[in-house]
Amino acid sequence: MKNRRNFVKQALAGAGFLGLSVFAKKAEASELKITIDKGLVHHVFFWLKNPDSEADCKRFEEGINLLLTIPEIKLSHVGKPVQSPREVVDDSFTYSYMAIFENEADQDSYQIHPTHLKFVEEYGDLWKKVIVYDAMN
Amino acid sequence: MKNRRNFVKQALAGAGFLGLSVFAKKAEASELKITIDKGLVHHVFFWLKNPDSEADCKRFEEGINLLLTIPEIKLSHVGKPVQSPREVVDDSFTYSYMAIFENEADQDSYQIHPTHLKFVEEYGDLWKKVIVYDAMN
Repeated sequence: MKNRRNFVKQALAGAGFLGLSVFAKKAEASELKITIDKGLVHHVFFWLKNPDSEADCKRFEEGINLLLTIPEIKLSHVGKPVQSPREVVDDSFTYSYMAIFENEADQDSYQIHPTHLKFVEEYGDLWKKVIVYDAMN
Repeated sequence: MKNRRNFVKQALAGAGFLGLSVFAKKAEASELKITIDKGLVHHVFFWLKNPDSEADCKRFEEGINLLLTIPEIKLSHVGKPVQSPREVVDDSFTYSYMAIFENEADQDSYQIHPTHLKFVEEYGDLWKKVIVYDAMN
């Protein structure tokens, strides 16, 4: 029981330290979940021109890894689509890139960061379509 | 310096405890960032029929709060669009709902969880359009 409480504390301290305001829904470690109740979720979906080209995918991932070095990004995830037969699921994209910022000012800094500009400039020929969704509570 | 290291440790222990595999890009607390390198990001965008109706928004949020109690959800975020003049940004949705699961099996359990079915059944009349993106590394 003491261990559980410590785990919950660690999880909250960790997430909180990222500058994201969070709360735990349950005090039981076995059911611990964290809701980010502050922070800006920036989610980008890329459709590559040649999604089956290994070379293009490799180059794209290199670009994304560059992007991830930008300091304003607190939490990130890069993925490929999970295929689904469900009608509401769009699994046609090639890459999903999600970055969480503390606030709008941080996303503004990120947008004009030289590394971000370089990413668009040097890797922008790889994709044919991109959709960005930005959400905040 | 010792404090910084402790913070980094806490952040990693916290995120790791959620069952998400993560790594820190920098050991400096001031630049700490976490990349989730395992886990399934389930991101859903809702377009309500009456996005300006306070009653509908309240009911929708009540439904989402119900959804967030499902145990398989490890990390979540609920938001409204951040308006943007940038062409690639779609800020037309009413609500963004993001949930991170440990793996595909957990998302499968979530999909058939009675609370999820209840959400679709009891609140499904509120939206006119929904898009789901599921991504994994």
